[in-house]
Amino acid sequence: MVTSEYDAHTAVTRTAPGDYAAQLHDGWVVGGGVNGGYLLGAVGNAVRASVPDKPHPFSVSAYYLSASVPGPARITTEVKRDGGSVATVAAELWQGAPGQEAARLTALATYGDLGTLPDGVETTAAEPDLPPRDRCVPNTMAPEDVRRMAPMMERFDMLFHPEQVGWAVGQPSGNGVISAWFRLKDGREPDPISLLTVVDLLPPVTFDLGRPGWAPTLELTVHVRAVPAAGWLKVRHQTRNVAGGMFEEDCEVWDSAGRLVAQSRQLARLPRG
Amino acid sequence: MVTSEYDAHTAVTRTAPGDYAAQLHDGWVVGGGVNGGYLLGAVGNAVRASVPDKPHPFSVSAYYLSASVPGPARITTEVKRDGGSVATVAAELWQGAPGQEAARLTALATYGDLGTLPDGVETTAAEPDLPPRDRCVPNTMAPEDVRRMAPMMERFDMLFHPEQVGWAVGQPSGNGVISAWFRLKDGREPDPISLLTVVDLLPPVTFDLGRPGWAPTLELTVHVRAVPAAGWLKVRHQTRNVAGGMFEEDCEVWDSAGRLVAQSRQLARLPRG
Repeated sequence: MVTSEYDAHTAVTRTAPGDYAAQLHDGWVVGGGVNGGYLLGAVGNAVRASVPDKPHPFSVSAYYLSASVPGPARITTEVKRDGGSVATVAAELWQGAPGQEAARLTALATYGDLGTLPDGVETTAAEPDLPPRDRCVPNTMAPEDVRRMAPMMERFDMLFHPEQVGWAVGQPSGNGVISAWFRLKDGREPDPISLLTVVDLLPPVTFDLGRPGWAPTLELTVHVRAVPAAGWLKVRHQTRNVAGGMFEEDCEVWDSAGRLVAQSRQLARLPRG
Repeated sequence: MVTSEYDAHTAVTRTAPGDYAAQLHDGWVVGGGVNGGYLLGAVGNAVRASVPDKPHPFSVSAYYLSASVPGPARITTEVKRDGGSVATVAAELWQGAPGQEAARLTALATYGDLGTLPDGVETTAAEPDLPPRDRCVPNTMAPEDVRRMAPMMERFDMLFHPEQVGWAVGQPSGNGVISAWFRLKDGREPDPISLLTVVDLLPPVTFDLGRPGWAPTLELTVHVRAVPAAGWLKVRHQTRNVAGGMFEEDCEVWDSAGRLVAQSRQLARLPRG
């Protein structure tokens, strides 16, 4: 049995009721910490294990408390309500020696079975208008210093819209939009858990506003709206309210069948400088 | 000293550390329960009391577990982290006799001081294009049966955009947008706490899609981005992804100074029928 890199990196082991061990991989480091979407993959697996008959995240809200580091982590879960078609679970991710643990994030999640939802789709949102993949700009073209600061870029193929990647060469568009094709490096197909990670993998949309640098997330909520079809995803970040030293970042993930499968919004601090 | 109706209805009394008593007023009933935004007003006051030097909500995420009813409620708070410029608090609202309490909602919130944030505003979102108030359609014109189902409509003045209120006379536009002028009935000026309520007061945007009826919220996250100026607010609801029996509803609240002061997104179930 071959386990994908992503599944291995986000795996959790139950050590007691409501208590899971995880190992945060240094391959997901970006800027000053471990990527917040990657953390949600591990947390999402722990929540899923705590409500086995509700396999899929419908909504997950994470509040980030301190920067995570590669290495061991503990995830605790508490079922708040499990009845009818959905369950709501609180989860926390901890790091540090026993007795000196610090919470890295605290989260709430509602899980259910996406397969039981009605079929009707009346989406009016427009799919990202991405050129064919061979005309997009791959993340493998990133300069060496960027790749050193963001080893997580080795975990996936990301092919940027050529008109939204000017920030990479010092010419940000100022529009506050970044979109790209996406798939995990080893071809691991998307599923509802991996979407929790995908919504936080594009560079901060502030890059496109001429403000490079790490944008610490205060809060991130993801809604997973359907089980994604196999194949490449289209991912788009945008912001409409940069104010008071903070910005909201909306992410949409569209699957290869043209369905809007995940929507997220985060509140982040503007990069300093 | 005159206390506004809203402040009286959302007041909480500390009964023990992290434990607050509230009285849910029947004036905020709508459809099958008590309005979720009103609940956030009371929860928001309890959180504020638990971190006194962090007066304003920056972000609040509520997961709704069961329908609230008018009458006594208990709100419990747990500070997850309080350090630096923000504090993160978990809160729950409970109803029922001691020993038989049911959680109505569970929430996470990050509070801070909006007054300490930098001044810069580079918002690209567009303010709702509402006609002057005397050309809008007041909620007081709602038919008697609507007002009976939604006594909460007596708590505020809401003046609808005349081109987005066709649903009230059986002619929904199908666009999925509803916007209105808003103020609390007794002229109580907006503040960061009342914005937690305002984002959930417009009719479900599904009314404008020809799907009247109650749309139960699974999850609602509000970002409060600035202390609102005194005066009328402009509020807009819209949806872009009606699918799988659910929809997201985005709300923006703009103050009288033309600033986008609150943004929210909720995930709700489509009304039956």
